[in-house]
Amino acid sequence: MIKYLELSKVTAMHADEIRSAVARVVDSGWYLQGEQTRLFEQEYADYIGTRYCVGCGNGLDALTLILRAYKEMGVMNDGDEVIVPANTYIASILSVTENGLKPVLVEPRLDTLQVDDRLIEQAITPRTKAVMIVHLYGRCAYTEYIYDLCRRRGLRLIEDNAQAHGCTFGSKRTGSLGDAAGHSFYPGKNLGALGDAGAVTTDDDELAKTVRTLGNYGSARKYVFCMKGRNSRIDEIQAAVLRIKMKYLDAENNIRRSIAERYIANVSNPLLLLPSVEYCAASVHHIFPVLCTRRDELQTYLYNNGVQTVIHYPIPPHRQLCYAGFAGLNLPITERIHHEELSIPLNQTLDDYEVDTIIQLLNDFK
Amino acid sequence: MIKYLELSKVTAMHADEIRSAVARVVDSGWYLQGEQTRLFEQEYADYIGTRYCVGCGNGLDALTLILRAYKEMGVMNDGDEVIVPANTYIASILSVTENGLKPVLVEPRLDTLQVDDRLIEQAITPRTKAVMIVHLYGRCAYTEYIYDLCRRRGLRLIEDNAQAHGCTFGSKRTGSLGDAAGHSFYPGKNLGALGDAGAVTTDDDELAKTVRTLGNYGSARKYVFCMKGRNSRIDEIQAAVLRIKMKYLDAENNIRRSIAERYIANVSNPLLLLPSVEYCAASVHHIFPVLCTRRDELQTYLYNNGVQTVIHYPIPPHRQLCYAGFAGLNLPITERIHHEELSIPLNQTLDDYEVDTIIQLLNDFK
Ligand SMILES: Cc1ncc(COP(=O)(O)O)c(/C=N/[C@@H]2[C@@H](O)[C@@H](OP(=O)(O)OP(=O)(O)OC[C@H]3O[C@@H](n4cc(C)c(=O)[nH]c4=O)C[C@@H]3O)O[C@H](C)[C@H]2O)c1O
Ligand SMILES: Cc1ncc(COP(=O)(O)O)c(/C=N/[C@@H]2[C@@H](O)[C@@H](OP(=O)(O)OP(=O)(O)OC[C@H]3O[C@@H](n4cc(C)c(=O)[nH]c4=O)C[C@@H]3O)O[C@H](C)[C@H]2O)c1O
Repeated sequence: MIKYLELSKVTAMHADEIRSAVARVVDSGWYLQGEQTRLFEQEYADYIGTRYCVGCGNGLDALTLILRAYKEMGVMNDGDEVIVPANTYIASILSVTENGLKPVLVEPRLDTLQVDDRLIEQAITPRTKAVMIVHLYGRCAYTEYIYDLCRRRGLRLIEDNAQAHGCTFGSKRTGSLGDAAGHSFYPGKNLGALGDAGAVTTDDDELAKTVRTLGNYGSARKYVFCMKGRNSRIDEIQAAVLRIKMKYLDAENNIRRSIAERYIANVSNPLLLLPSVEYCAASVHHIFPVLCTRRDELQTYLYNNGVQTVIHYPIPPHRQLCYAGFAGLNLPITERIHHEELSIPLNQTLDDYEVDTIIQLLNDFK
Repeated sequence: MIKYLELSKVTAMHADEIRSAVARVVDSGWYLQGEQTRLFEQEYADYIGTRYCVGCGNGLDALTLILRAYKEMGVMNDGDEVIVPANTYIASILSVTENGLKPVLVEPRLDTLQVDDRLIEQAITPRTKAVMIVHLYGRCAYTEYIYDLCRRRGLRLIEDNAQAHGCTFGSKRTGSLGDAAGHSFYPGKNLGALGDAGAVTTDDDELAKTVRTLGNYGSARKYVFCMKGRNSRIDEIQAAVLRIKMKYLDAENNIRRSIAERYIANVSNPLLLLPSVEYCAASVHHIFPVLCTRRDELQTYLYNNGVQTVIHYPIPPHRQLCYAGFAGLNLPITERIHHEELSIPLNQTLDDYEVDTIIQLLNDFK
């Protein structure tokens, strides 16, 4: 069985280094807000290309804290609107409603699966305060058009970079393209911790400070609480692990890219819609989505032939019970993607034989 | 210098076991919601004496998720009131305001430093939905009177057990005395993880399920979201570490208790108010508070003589900037405690010589 993703194999690639970094933190006796966190924040900010990085508990918290900080700073108020892609992992949208803000869902393009930037302007109302783009599947959702639109209309541009560590746009990395970005280091991510972890990157000094304070009970100085905050910090252990894995991220993204290129070059089944080649230069292929109108059959067929796949995601956010208020929305492209998407294995531990097997099976599907 | 607390020494007591448990999780490739979490939850529920335990990100989240779950279950609504002790770490109160609920602060008793149960009933209004007691400093705040009052008035009784793992009331443990309890495994706690971690314990099936769902993005089944949730989970690594440390918790609490008994028996300086002996049977002495009207002088004196101390806490919640609305409250006992409290070192790594040194210094303070 070719598993969709086996993190034991991912860890094994750097097992000695990781195990000894973890042991060093264990022995150090310092487990939160210490040297590993400071160094990780520095190194990750350098990597992404922002002035600040603030570690936090996970990716959902990162996005939630950005919006909460904007509220604390007076940039947004209860009931203000944030434009988000309709096709995303639900966490992007939860960060908006968690803050008493209103998500306004915008359809993606079928060729890119990313938010359709031509539809954003018409979604703006006087209450719109921000546009959140999601670099879904590891592909860049940013366009200069979106940037200009946000500047022109006075909107904050927030990036959800949970799936796209290392992805580039021109000479810059996603996570440095807007006003602030949320990152997830959920274990299965391209840059994954060994537990929950996340971070916010930004060039905005006040935002960085506010996020850090809000994630530390609202305290910037020990025992002094200037805001009502939460507890959302990155563990020293996770920071130490991420510092190691970060060194290999670009190389591992390149392996992902070469596998994606092989899929694209060799799968030629008219029943399947693969990502277009143009995306492969910059994408970091966190997920390799294949669209197929007979998706569930395809999944069963692959499973019966020893290949595990995942659906990202079977039910779109506006069809979830927790967003019953959105159920009336007409979002046909989003729904089509959720009906047709299948993620086939793609990660740095796949060997040639496995990739060939998957290509062969995809071509043989009738 | 006798440090207030050095976690490198605490970890060193079980270093081999901890290091190898951590390494096992690293190699396993499973980092969240796996076997270690399941086993920890089972073992901790057994230890506390509740039917359910749900791991989460930290202690503040544990309390926040309990109240959020009660709101989700329709037990509480925006603007409802929760009675909390005025003398507590601010997190207890943050969990209330985080949920749009109103904290009603009640004064402690000076002899116990715990909420004065005689003052609770008069704080009840038609909007009161719960009483949160905090087992501060490791001492039991629960009384049968509070339990009966809650039952009689239809209020939930919530325990903040962040500081009192292992503390008992009769044959039961704190954390099993009310309707639900929040636990913190912040590294410095009696049962501390090597990073942030927390848990909710309860006998209430619906509450346990709701807390678990809310801490997993609002999802009880993968990719299906029935509530608007957060991300607050316990890492497998932390669960594995806690499983080991839990085995030694009672023995280590006994060491704390015997040091506390020595302090109480041997410190006889009329300038200092020590905890009364009656508390030493059940207290787990997370913190050993000494009251002194010349507290700051005492702290400097001890520091200059090589003993590091901590103030828990220098500013009471109602005097914090984030609770400016409470600034007008008249809470003289709370304020007195915050002015006079000094925590002297007390943990399982102190040796006899250190304890004697501290006793001698306290007796010599003039
Ligand atoms: C756009 C966007 N914004 C915000 C967020 C929120 O970030 P977060 O709060 O950090 O989760 C996400 C999160 N995104 C992901 C989301 O995409 C989804 O990812 P998924 O591919 O369904 O993840 P999974 O199935 O749990 O793991 C993938 C594979 O990895 C293997 N595995 C997994 C684990 C946990 C393990 O320990 N060992 C393993 O071997 C088995 C699985 O097949 O669900 C996760 C819980 C979220 O963190 C996002 O995509
Ligand atoms: C009643 C109540 N309810 C809810 C909560 C919320 O729980 P939480 O969200 O899990 O924090 C608390 C938390 N309570 C504690 C709170 O009491 C306070 O504790 P504190 O004694 O001031 O803690 P500290 O000074 O950070 O650590 C104590 C000593 O430990 C040493 N140390 C510390 C660290 C972190 C280390 O890695 N290595 C070390 O050697 C140095 C310090 O002298 O501040 C913490 C951040 C909270 O988690 C509470 O008391």
